[in-house]
Amino acid sequence: MAQKPSIPKGTRDFSPVEVQRRQFIMNTIKHHFEHYGFMPIETPSFENSDTLLGKYGEEGDRLIFKILNNGQYLKKVNETDLGAKNESKVSPQISKRALRYDLTVPFARYVVQHQNDITFPFKRYQIQPVWRADRPQHGRFQEFYQCDADVVGSDSLLQEVELVKLYDAVFTDLKLENCTIKINNRKILAGIAQMIGAQDQLIDFTVALDKLDKIGVDKVKEEMILKGISPIAIEKLNPVFSLQGDFTEKLEVMKDLLSDSEIGQKGIQELTFINNAIKKLGLKSALLDLDITLARGLNYYTGCIFEVAAPAGVKMGSIGGGGRYDDLTSMFGLKAVSGVGISFGLDRIYLVIEELGLFPDSVRAGVDVLFVNFGDKESEYAMDLVFRFRESGIKSELYPEQVKTQKQMKYADRNEIPYVILIGEDEMKLGSILLKNMVSGEQELLKPEEVITRLK
Amino acid sequence: MAQKPSIPKGTRDFSPVEVQRRQFIMNTIKHHFEHYGFMPIETPSFENSDTLLGKYGEEGDRLIFKILNNGQYLKKVNETDLGAKNESKVSPQISKRALRYDLTVPFARYVVQHQNDITFPFKRYQIQPVWRADRPQHGRFQEFYQCDADVVGSDSLLQEVELVKLYDAVFTDLKLENCTIKINNRKILAGIAQMIGAQDQLIDFTVALDKLDKIGVDKVKEEMILKGISPIAIEKLNPVFSLQGDFTEKLEVMKDLLSDSEIGQKGIQELTFINNAIKKLGLKSALLDLDITLARGLNYYTGCIFEVAAPAGVKMGSIGGGGRYDDLTSMFGLKAVSGVGISFGLDRIYLVIEELGLFPDSVRAGVDVLFVNFGDKESEYAMDLVFRFRESGIKSELYPEQVKTQKQMKYADRNEIPYVILIGEDEMKLGSILLKNMVSGEQELLKPEEVITRLK
Repeated sequence: MAQKPSIPKGTRDFSPVEVQRRQFIMNTIKHHFEHYGFMPIETPSFENSDTLLGKYGEEGDRLIFKILNNGQYLKKVNETDLGAKNESKVSPQISKRALRYDLTVPFARYVVQHQNDITFPFKRYQIQPVWRADRPQHGRFQEFYQCDADVVGSDSLLQEVELVKLYDAVFTDLKLENCTIKINNRKILAGIAQMIGAQDQLIDFTVALDKLDKIGVDKVKEEMILKGISPIAIEKLNPVFSLQGDFTEKLEVMKDLLSDSEIGQKGIQELTFINNAIKKLGLKSALLDLDITLARGLNYYTGCIFEVAAPAGVKMGSIGGGGRYDDLTSMFGLKAVSGVGISFGLDRIYLVIEELGLFPDSVRAGVDVLFVNFGDKESEYAMDLVFRFRESGIKSELYPEQVKTQKQMKYADRNEIPYVILIGEDEMKLGSILLKNMVSGEQELLKPEEVITRLK
Repeated sequence: MAQKPSIPKGTRDFSPVEVQRRQFIMNTIKHHFEHYGFMPIETPSFENSDTLLGKYGEEGDRLIFKILNNGQYLKKVNETDLGAKNESKVSPQISKRALRYDLTVPFARYVVQHQNDITFPFKRYQIQPVWRADRPQHGRFQEFYQCDADVVGSDSLLQEVELVKLYDAVFTDLKLENCTIKINNRKILAGIAQMIGAQDQLIDFTVALDKLDKIGVDKVKEEMILKGISPIAIEKLNPVFSLQGDFTEKLEVMKDLLSDSEIGQKGIQELTFINNAIKKLGLKSALLDLDITLARGLNYYTGCIFEVAAPAGVKMGSIGGGGRYDDLTSMFGLKAVSGVGISFGLDRIYLVIEELGLFPDSVRAGVDVLFVNFGDKESEYAMDLVFRFRESGIKSELYPEQVKTQKQMKYADRNEIPYVILIGEDEMKLGSILLKNMVSGEQELLKPEEVITRLK
């Protein structure tokens, strides 16, 4: 009967302190989402399969977790498909539901389904887990949280400005200073592709450009040539490869370079508006920078795109990203709804904060004070105080059994409880409390009210 | 391409105000869990199938959502099983993971798996969704939240006392006054069964007794006779059927009735301890009452059992329940760990609060104040103030486009935003703000600092 218990690969148990630390990050994000006017929604963990399948490309479909139908699910399956063991034909016959793969497609589905109840522009946030059947590896999980904020139904570039400020506000609050918010614009990428005559190879071109940081200029050029982009066209890209200076200076160079491309100029205008607005409003700790190599994989982006790099010195992929999409809801039949959104990568942010030792000491799991149990009479007396303490907002507990004081102290120690209260016969007579500071070891005899005031 | 979007039966989308109301309930529960010394853990949404299957009876196994393996999952399936379309044999071959059915079994798994990292007694809480392939109906969903608090590794009856107080604290805070916390003890039920010579039919006996409220004394007696319990034995039950008075009085009657049953007396002693402790500590709004017909289905309970009835007048099943179990972790090989826990039924509590109109007005989804957009110059000016307001803790947004004021007002109205701020050229010159109260319609010309002070 007894099994050696374990959990599936790529999933995690979270201990009390881990939950509290994750909550600390999520609450910080949530606080700013709400102060910026985003409203929470939640969607079901599983959707109808046809809501999800076909939305993330072939690779995505493979990584979606499918839920087996209940009951006699094999009865109606086509005999030939089953006999041939053809999974791609059998799966839709035995599974009609699938676990959410991201929050974006369910959000698009929500907007279309509830369009008559929604007042546009609709600013929503969503903090929920998603599931992917990816091969588990360090920092990649099959279940992880996404924290998304999106606005749909507004073309205004003020949204992009707000989202840059929102990133800055959250990362400043988390004490993650000097994060770089990298920005680019799909229209600029389209302009560059146009300029070099590769507008039909926009994807090949951006995929290659995206690797500039990792493989260097020469290798990127090689890859572009392999993809059939002409050497002459690539030579025109030299100013892009050697782009230098701050956001404003880079924009100037790009403006000249793209002078013949209408779409490129549109992209420049958009970024100029954002750059000027952010210069006026200021950022508290983050840096906004143009990264012309930033492409982001998802094809639904059409305007600005964002990606956030962790503070310099921390080895970590992007800790956030997003962008503008002009036609997300059309997959569910609602056209011409422009949207823009950003996402926070909870797990990576956690790892960065941990690496930098920036979790506040106040983010703990245990109570503020443990009352030692010295027996029936004493614990009955202490219990009254425990409830008074709790009502004063102090997290308190009485050790449930009368065991050796040493064992009770060890319990306090292991749970990192900062104070222990000892009330024996003498203290009961005096109406006093012996308060022990578990860090300094100091003990003081005090009245209950004094202790409450001090611990509050 | 376009689909009419929908979600699976038995699942729900939650709108902004619904999320906020659910959060309000969860945060209240969480607040008290933590003040009582419970620490949060989280477990994965899906577990290995063998962790869950066989733990909830045959019916439970049927209702567990199984996840289809990825890749070429049909390749290794036994040909005969597949040809025979034998689901019970095929399922384990094509599905190795399953969605969590409750929080109790994953908690038992967690305790056993992490026993070396845990300091006992271990007080944990867990607020997470669970999934059941139940036929959806009013108030019954395939995805719903459970909010559980349990202590393992302590026999002390002080835990039961604390849990009664915890129920009272949460329901008082939610303004759900006059909830009845019904208590019973499995040992008393065993004692009664022993007394009437039906100890081998304890389950039949408790199942029949459990129906007393619904079908009345005569029908319960009929059912017991059908189950083979003798009429003479059943006559001995008359004092149980006609039990009257308060907790203390009922305990007196039961104590006499069970004078010959050792286990029955043990149950009486336990309830007497709890009754006395609660009488001394007092309850703020709930009532603690002995309900001798309370049995609760789950077989792992061995001591006290609880169930909470909503305030009188509200038609709703129990809004909470729990009890003591002496051997939960033995299913994973860890013996002799006693535990006790309670659960809050989030969805039902929501419905009760909604029916009684008790959600506080402060539980809203929208921002505190909307700044009207009168054009580029005005919105640039307003944007600065929006950020000052947010930093002062006021949820604020600027309408993103310069559209008719009427449309912007409608947006504020629909999102129940209580204040609107209008800053045109005149106000900019004066350095003032026109604040409009959206409920009273009143407008005032104020300095920004005055508005911040008022809205904070």
